[in-house]
Amino acid sequence: MSLMWRNDAVSEELTQSFDLRDRGLLLGDGLFETLLVVRQVPLWVGPHFDRLEASAKILGIPVDRQKLEFALADLMTKSGPEPQVLRVTLTRGPTDRGYTSNSETPGLMLTLDPFDITRVGEPVTLATSAFRRNASAFGSGHKTLSYVDNVMASREASAKGAGDALLLNTDGNVASTTMANVFFLQGGKLVTPALPDGILPGIARAQMLKIAGELELEAEERSVAPVELFAADAVFTTNSLRFVRSVTKLDGKAMGERSTAMILDALLEAAGVSEVI
Amino acid sequence: MSLMWRNDAVSEELTQSFDLRDRGLLLGDGLFETLLVVRQVPLWVGPHFDRLEASAKILGIPVDRQKLEFALADLMTKSGPEPQVLRVTLTRGPTDRGYTSNSETPGLMLTLDPFDITRVGEPVTLATSAFRRNASAFGSGHKTLSYVDNVMASREASAKGAGDALLLNTDGNVASTTMANVFFLQGGKLVTPALPDGILPGIARAQMLKIAGELELEAEERSVAPVELFAADAVFTTNSLRFVRSVTKLDGKAMGERSTAMILDALLEAAGVSEVI
Repeated sequence: MSLMWRNDAVSEELTQSFDLRDRGLLLGDGLFETLLVVRQVPLWVGPHFDRLEASAKILGIPVDRQKLEFALADLMTKSGPEPQVLRVTLTRGPTDRGYTSNSETPGLMLTLDPFDITRVGEPVTLATSAFRRNASAFGSGHKTLSYVDNVMASREASAKGAGDALLLNTDGNVASTTMANVFFLQGGKLVTPALPDGILPGIARAQMLKIAGELELEAEERSVAPVELFAADAVFTTNSLRFVRSVTKLDGKAMGERSTAMILDALLEAAGVSEVI
Repeated sequence: MSLMWRNDAVSEELTQSFDLRDRGLLLGDGLFETLLVVRQVPLWVGPHFDRLEASAKILGIPVDRQKLEFALADLMTKSGPEPQVLRVTLTRGPTDRGYTSNSETPGLMLTLDPFDITRVGEPVTLATSAFRRNASAFGSGHKTLSYVDNVMASREASAKGAGDALLLNTDGNVASTTMANVFFLQGGKLVTPALPDGILPGIARAQMLKIAGELELEAEERSVAPVELFAADAVFTTNSLRFVRSVTKLDGKAMGERSTAMILDALLEAAGVSEVI
């Protein structure tokens, strides 16, 4: 069962009255965030809302942070304690025709869906996508509603029997998967593509970098060649829902088998949910 | 006043009941087409619908062509003779969470809005965008709902006082504007970026190439360096609404002043509307 906050009301009904000129629908002109909710607490909510607000500012979509916080609180009080996914969707709202038209009434909706907590930490296989990430694109560094390339890459990976797609950037370096950032371990080093490589500034990625020291790992953000992944002790992905997923295969080849269990535990601990998951 | 066909009904009401899980809204997962309608006749409707159908096939979104044709006919009989813009929007429809989820019920809506016919052939100024087109991206070659980079580039151009943005691709060659293909004239040659340069296969572009011979121009589709535009006799853009627009300035510099009036006339003639516009 889903639960949605929209227009100051919480409802189980997801079919609602909607202005079909909303540019979120017509042009992918908006943003979203996806958070894990455990015991009615959305994890890393501050950084997620900060990212949404920062991207919205660049897009020129006004964000009422107080309204957002209130909507979240309203939704939380009406939801149960079971693990859930919270999706926040912000759209530019309805406008006249023309790409530069703006709206005074952005759209905001918050949706809760059940989340199977056993999927946290689940290993994943990857297949390299034919689609490349473009570091200069606005959509590469911001979590916009214009996600069709991720949809296509994901479908392509699925057709190859892989769990997710590895996206390289137009320079041929590693960017991310369609839904997660990529890290690898090599001796005492923890390496991940740098932000200018056309990646989303992942919230779990930032947390991971923050706790690297506690794990006695030296964090490096830099361009990563695909060949480095095959030579690594371990490759893993991070996101806010599945935390740390060990990459077992890339394009059918087995990857380094160093355990990432300690890393998963440390990230769960950092999120304050190690005793729950 | 707008008029919309949706769910087998034509209405002036654009705020309607809508399943908010539709992936057109959540992930920009869908397609659109924009056509000029003159005397209740949508121009180049066959090629526009063919393009929609071809892209939808790759996305895995079923298109009922008969339903589409019927919807169009229904909408046309209920509209007036004045010039209008027809927008066809196809979405994947509502699905469960997960990028690879599919729907049996894609969304289809056709909207008519008034169009100021004096905008046909209107000259335009361009400003080169910081955002690049990525030739490998699915979204570059298909008219998807994931248009946020075009929105951003358009806003950026507008802030610089230009009418539209010139988008280069990640190789630094000319791709297109946010809403039109780019051509230039040099002596007896008509040159336009090739499809592998990361451009949308424009319907007006294809018609333009088709009639080049009649204009005693030798058509070339190839990679175009930005510097070639400054050296050209004339630069112009093409799309299905404005037909041929002469580019008067690029990044503030005056462009070649050879007239494109004959080219505009020929394209209007090819569309069968030269006596109307």
